[in-house]
Amino acid sequence: MKPLPPGSTIGILGGGQLGRMLSIAAAQLGFDVAIFTDEPDSPAGRVSAKTMVGNYLDTAALADFARRVDVVTTEFENVPAQTAEALIAAGARVAPNPRALAIAQDRFDEKSFFASMGIATPPFRAIASQADLDAAIAAIGAPAILKTRRLGYDGRGQIRINSGADAAGAYEKLGAPGILEGFCAFEREVSIIAARGWDGAIAFYDLCENEHSGGILSRTTLPARVDAKVTQSARHAVTQVLNAFDYVGVLTIEFFVMPDGSLVANEMAPRVHNSGHWTIEGALTSQFEQQIRAVAGWPLGPTNCVAGIEMLNLIGEDANAWEALAADPDVRLHLYGKRDVRGGRKMGHVTKLKFS
Amino acid sequence: MKPLPPGSTIGILGGGQLGRMLSIAAAQLGFDVAIFTDEPDSPAGRVSAKTMVGNYLDTAALADFARRVDVVTTEFENVPAQTAEALIAAGARVAPNPRALAIAQDRFDEKSFFASMGIATPPFRAIASQADLDAAIAAIGAPAILKTRRLGYDGRGQIRINSGADAAGAYEKLGAPGILEGFCAFEREVSIIAARGWDGAIAFYDLCENEHSGGILSRTTLPARVDAKVTQSARHAVTQVLNAFDYVGVLTIEFFVMPDGSLVANEMAPRVHNSGHWTIEGALTSQFEQQIRAVAGWPLGPTNCVAGIEMLNLIGEDANAWEALAADPDVRLHLYGKRDVRGGRKMGHVTKLKFS
Repeated sequence: MKPLPPGSTIGILGGGQLGRMLSIAAAQLGFDVAIFTDEPDSPAGRVSAKTMVGNYLDTAALADFARRVDVVTTEFENVPAQTAEALIAAGARVAPNPRALAIAQDRFDEKSFFASMGIATPPFRAIASQADLDAAIAAIGAPAILKTRRLGYDGRGQIRINSGADAAGAYEKLGAPGILEGFCAFEREVSIIAARGWDGAIAFYDLCENEHSGGILSRTTLPARVDAKVTQSARHAVTQVLNAFDYVGVLTIEFFVMPDGSLVANEMAPRVHNSGHWTIEGALTSQFEQQIRAVAGWPLGPTNCVAGIEMLNLIGEDANAWEALAADPDVRLHLYGKRDVRGGRKMGHVTKLKFS
Repeated sequence: MKPLPPGSTIGILGGGQLGRMLSIAAAQLGFDVAIFTDEPDSPAGRVSAKTMVGNYLDTAALADFARRVDVVTTEFENVPAQTAEALIAAGARVAPNPRALAIAQDRFDEKSFFASMGIATPPFRAIASQADLDAAIAAIGAPAILKTRRLGYDGRGQIRINSGADAAGAYEKLGAPGILEGFCAFEREVSIIAARGWDGAIAFYDLCENEHSGGILSRTTLPARVDAKVTQSARHAVTQVLNAFDYVGVLTIEFFVMPDGSLVANEMAPRVHNSGHWTIEGALTSQFEQQIRAVAGWPLGPTNCVAGIEMLNLIGEDANAWEALAADPDVRLHLYGKRDVRGGRKMGHVTKLKFS
């Protein structure tokens, strides 16, 4: 693809904080941004040249959006695959492609996809009935986690099964097709963020070490406490995934690091990722600029990490401490412009840099 | 002033690239931005929540703007002082205050102000007639520079007087009240960027070394090749200026460094400054975030410089090289979203970082 000249319009599906940070990155490169979202007064819409508020399944609105933009990308993975397909039918270039979105939207398809490429996953089974669940627990053992196949995020839609007894009625409680995943006695959690351009070029960020609390990312640190072989394994896996999808844009895979140093893939996100927010200050090219560069057909930027990093999420009421955080010289504060503080809602983040 | 909570609206007078970078910084802290500009489709308006397009002397429009924002600041110094006064009359908090704007808008008042505080300037005389000019040249000598008192920038509205003979007809050619400034045989040019909060706290950035071409800044490097005494002199001068105005926000003074290490003030800008664009990547708090922090009543952020810096302006057709610049891994590229490339127009800049 010929690189889009400055002044072109980048379309973004979704109006949340990832869209906001993507829009800022696009603006710094001289692009205009148009947001398509079902949310009026969205965090991303408030920093973008144009916003269209509409339903993700409204084909006419999507066709109108397609006419106004030069390329379309996404800020969240639960955009219906039909949305991307409707945009393509209306003549839009869409990156990443709908196939990557569709697979990442279904935890069973995602893990099956990993397995098909020889990327290790926790043991897993598709669950469409209580009988499936009982059989899966017999096969995989407990503890295990029952999750919805679709639309779960940040720990929602998950039931922990500590023993066979916990399984009784669990499928009914889940209320949707599910997946049972075996428990992994991992040593730590890491993620790899990588980007691929229209020309197939790939760039990797340094491995991120992550801590979760209540199913939500709470802390990312770099450098990750892993040896070089672990980084190589993660790069190998993400390269396979990017190439298999003929992927364009930023993609993230979260892994468990096992005691023997092997990696087990937990999930992937076909987008910029919370564990990469440190790249705004901590890398030569932020993950947001990288996504814009990739989808606009620009060369990928250098990903060097320039400092030791600690990124802390501000979840719900954490953001009420903005005044103290603003006064802390060791903290770079980011707030997302969300109107209401709600429990479990990502309100912002802080990045701490350690220059050696 | 009590700090404005996130979600408050920062009003910015002016829609150019400085407003665009201010708006991006405000967004990262969770603020909304409203731009007041006489330019439809402005670079800043395209990244801001609201834009009002109006005349800077339209009192009713300004009163409407005042009602929609929590504080007002400016991105260019030629906002009429009446504009700031109309906003204050309508109940707005305005920072910096109109007095600083008014003095910085008139080169004679500005140099008189410097002189009144014991800050050295080149020799200067107010010129309101050809007779004034002839007398001033007799007193100051040639070479000297005849400038309009008001509304000149980036080298416009200036006539070089190399000898008494050049003076003939020069006042008529200038066509407006002027100032004659003696020539300074300086060794180098530097600028100091500093910020002051509502509480009187002051923060300084490292001294910037600047090169101009055709009257327009072309290159800024850090560290400046000056000894610590020069930095101390610059900090002392800018502190006097900030306090004298009871100034709130970022202010810049450009100096000539003389062969003996003394400083001669060239001009000041009551705003963020082109020679501080490197702070986006090169300082812990950018000058744009610092301006937002100051006017919003937040504590000033740390100004540490994290790398060696070279900032190059992209003037006019320089920006046509965007494709090569985007491919250069040593360059962080910023483009301002201006629709047309014109000679002498600031289209963007690049920053190069040298980590030691």
